[in-house]
Amino acid sequence: MAEAERVGRRGRGGGGAARRAERSAVRFETARFIERNIPNLEILNEEALQIIEHNAETVLEEIGVAFVENPAALQRWRDAGADVSGERVRLPRGLARKLCETAPSRFTQIARNPARNVEIGGNSLVLAPVYGPPFWRDLDSGRRYATMADFETLVKLGYMSEWLHHSGGTVCEPTDVPVNKRHFDMLYAHMSLSDKPFMGSVTEPSRAADSVEMAKILFGEDVVDQNCVMTSLININSPLTFDSVMMGALEEYAAAGQACIISPFIVGGAMAPVSVMGTLTQVLAEVLAGVAYSQLVRPGAPAIFGAFVTSIDMNSGAPTFGTPEAQQITNGAGQLARRLGLPYRSGGAFNGSKLPDAQAAYESANSLQNALLSGVNFMLHACGWLEGGLVASPEKFVMDADQLGILHKFAEGVPIDANAQAMDALREVGPGGHFLGCAHTQANYQSAFWRTKLLDYRPYETWAEDGGHSTFELASARVQKLLRDYQAPMLDPGVDEALKDYVIRRKAEMPDAFI
Amino acid sequence: MAEAERVGRRGRGGGGAARRAERSAVRFETARFIERNIPNLEILNEEALQIIEHNAETVLEEIGVAFVENPAALQRWRDAGADVSGERVRLPRGLARKLCETAPSRFTQIARNPARNVEIGGNSLVLAPVYGPPFWRDLDSGRRYATMADFETLVKLGYMSEWLHHSGGTVCEPTDVPVNKRHFDMLYAHMSLSDKPFMGSVTEPSRAADSVEMAKILFGEDVVDQNCVMTSLININSPLTFDSVMMGALEEYAAAGQACIISPFIVGGAMAPVSVMGTLTQVLAEVLAGVAYSQLVRPGAPAIFGAFVTSIDMNSGAPTFGTPEAQQITNGAGQLARRLGLPYRSGGAFNGSKLPDAQAAYESANSLQNALLSGVNFMLHACGWLEGGLVASPEKFVMDADQLGILHKFAEGVPIDANAQAMDALREVGPGGHFLGCAHTQANYQSAFWRTKLLDYRPYETWAEDGGHSTFELASARVQKLLRDYQAPMLDPGVDEALKDYVIRRKAEMPDAFI
Repeated sequence: MAEAERVGRRGRGGGGAARRAERSAVRFETARFIERNIPNLEILNEEALQIIEHNAETVLEEIGVAFVENPAALQRWRDAGADVSGERVRLPRGLARKLCETAPSRFTQIARNPARNVEIGGNSLVLAPVYGPPFWRDLDSGRRYATMADFETLVKLGYMSEWLHHSGGTVCEPTDVPVNKRHFDMLYAHMSLSDKPFMGSVTEPSRAADSVEMAKILFGEDVVDQNCVMTSLININSPLTFDSVMMGALEEYAAAGQACIISPFIVGGAMAPVSVMGTLTQVLAEVLAGVAYSQLVRPGAPAIFGAFVTSIDMNSGAPTFGTPEAQQITNGAGQLARRLGLPYRSGGAFNGSKLPDAQAAYESANSLQNALLSGVNFMLHACGWLEGGLVASPEKFVMDADQLGILHKFAEGVPIDANAQAMDALREVGPGGHFLGCAHTQANYQSAFWRTKLLDYRPYETWAEDGGHSTFELASARVQKLLRDYQAPMLDPGVDEALKDYVIRRKAEMPDAFI
Repeated sequence: MAEAERVGRRGRGGGGAARRAERSAVRFETARFIERNIPNLEILNEEALQIIEHNAETVLEEIGVAFVENPAALQRWRDAGADVSGERVRLPRGLARKLCETAPSRFTQIARNPARNVEIGGNSLVLAPVYGPPFWRDLDSGRRYATMADFETLVKLGYMSEWLHHSGGTVCEPTDVPVNKRHFDMLYAHMSLSDKPFMGSVTEPSRAADSVEMAKILFGEDVVDQNCVMTSLININSPLTFDSVMMGALEEYAAAGQACIISPFIVGGAMAPVSVMGTLTQVLAEVLAGVAYSQLVRPGAPAIFGAFVTSIDMNSGAPTFGTPEAQQITNGAGQLARRLGLPYRSGGAFNGSKLPDAQAAYESANSLQNALLSGVNFMLHACGWLEGGLVASPEKFVMDADQLGILHKFAEGVPIDANAQAMDALREVGPGGHFLGCAHTQANYQSAFWRTKLLDYRPYETWAEDGGHSTFELASARVQKLLRDYQAPMLDPGVDEALKDYVIRRKAEMPDAFI
């Protein structure tokens, strides 16, 4: 009843109705964010790490970074001791790293349901869905532009996904809503259709400000002032460029004490050198500059070391996913983030496939497994991504979301107590025996093994008699079932009304814009 | 010309024809076995490892293992100091581990093409295809019993797979050949259709002896006496039982100085306790007993610490693959094998899917990635496995085989020299620039990124215009192309004739048997 109580305390009325609705609601289990009890894989040795750190400082000192169309940022840098020439900012060795020290190494993002609060940093791993696709593909309708209805579908699926901790942000682009008004509908969907934590809008500083205002309505002004209630995605325009739109959003969020993922967006060979070491050097330089800038805006504002990095098909120029070079960069960037003492965002169910088929799954699994072992703390795109991020797919969403359960179980590590040692079972069964009926199995079988809610383990004959469905078809059926079972989490009707009022009022203040 | 020269030296004639054929042959690139330049992931701490090692000794001492219908084995154990009661063999603490010391920690298996020799142990990883499926599935014919023609298809695909180092053994069961004569045709196929290393028959001691005889024809008697020319799969009848058929085959191979993979075959919860620690304890006890026994037969005979371990679906009793518990066991067993100083066999493109679809690929990728990081030295089932190992699939074979390239590149680690650091590229391009045209990219792009030979990276429109094929369909086309391009590697006609003569003579000595 924590949610109903919390909503009740806000005193906007409707408490009795809230509690009645709460009692009759279907409960959906959501796992707590992952806290790793296994070591990270670290493929770079100390020499490699020191070279990268040295070279990144050289990049900042000699080449510098560009803060474009942003005189206030240039002034902040001048005041901090940087060498500013035109829009180019060159940082004395060590300055950026020093500024990053005020960013927390771990922070809590709260959700309107406190049971869904997440901690980001340290040994945590928070899983969030796909972000940004303009297109949609499902089994029935094929590929088309995404709509607001699709957006709501994904928020509902995310709310009902046991292994997803975060509702995400732009789970797909609602292309049927004017560009300048989408953020209202997207935020309202996350706030009303889910009770998991979410992300704010970054496509214009004013939209970031709207995000903060709506969060204040949902959480209360004091709560927003004193807590991180949004973690938003600030992409760096790699190489080495910080544009005024993204920096404007960062400034809004940092000033409000809200978290930013400061993230190079790199297709290796195009936006960074073709080598792993060169790319990591650029990533580190960019993140150092970006996080340092967030601390110039407000020291202590939560900031995440982001790395969206993949490789390129040199024949076609297409980005490629689930590749060994992308794995190496993801892994190495994790080491750099930990040495910098910052939470780390990377990974996802990345793939370049047009269909949720074997290519999609190989590439996604490679990326997901690697991200867990790379010490990622915040994984955007953990489910639902298709076709290099151009397409959101509800079937792929539930396929990936099921796989996320594997990450949870593997990250738990191996219990070693007397029950886990199972010597009684070995003694009871002995050579040639069978363990299914032994006391230890009976006592432990329900929790012994992770269980899929999607994949098919039945014998061939049973599966064939039942139609011989592929994973894509099974996933489609699961999507339909989840949507049928969906019930919105309780929201104080007064809060709901206030959110709607804000959206209507703000939308009325501006004409529709479609670019 | 190494192959042609080697065959020529055997002096069975045909050297001129051999050299002519060699010159006109299509060359297929095969990568050298992997030598890891990355750390292993190790999820068990020292305490857990010591508990398992202590408990495994307790299992051997108190519970013991059964060597059934094998009086000679019992006598060997008595002579070695074990406590033998009926068919139960109890080993004093430390005896098995002491006996294992004579097994080499790394050995070379030679191939008839010396460029294909593999080293097994240390930081190596040798990849071999699927083993054992009685069924076959391909896109055109669906699911049916496998035949000798299918077997030959997989050997050809294996020969042509760049990332596969080993031709394997029973790549599928040729069910159209009598059970007691299959091994002749299977061995002849590996010997004649490929020049990669292979495995011997284990289904009866006499078939192991036939395997050694045929190897002597292929390699020469002295070569077989002084080298490992076969690595064969000896399954333990878990829990804790060593049957006379498998041990008879082991005795043949060990006596001939040939390598055995001594491998518990465990569906966790059925053939071992439901817990990771309990299963690892049993695995270690079984491998200790099995490898120790191989050293009683012939000290110094190569032996591999095997672990075929997976989890179970407690609802249906079906084995499950690509699961977190299987990953944990694979990882932990690798740590135990390294502490024992033995090469380690585990992993594979495991999955329980009926189709080569997303389920198959998620589960396979999870297993493949985990096996690489678990320090596996010999990976059977690295490609072609479907439906829990009941089905071999040529499409899945080429899909997995393509993924194996990722393991090669990731295992190489990250070069850190000046070219890799790419500071010139970063200086040349600068903020807002583009790396595709820079000098560093031009100098490095051809080797910078691993390239698939199967997966589709094209833009949606191009892909759709070309038919919008799934990975399954693309794989089918690749299978057909590889089979069209296939040319058998040169084999000395005299050797070929001698092999055929042996097969004909031995087949004629016994009536067909179909059970």
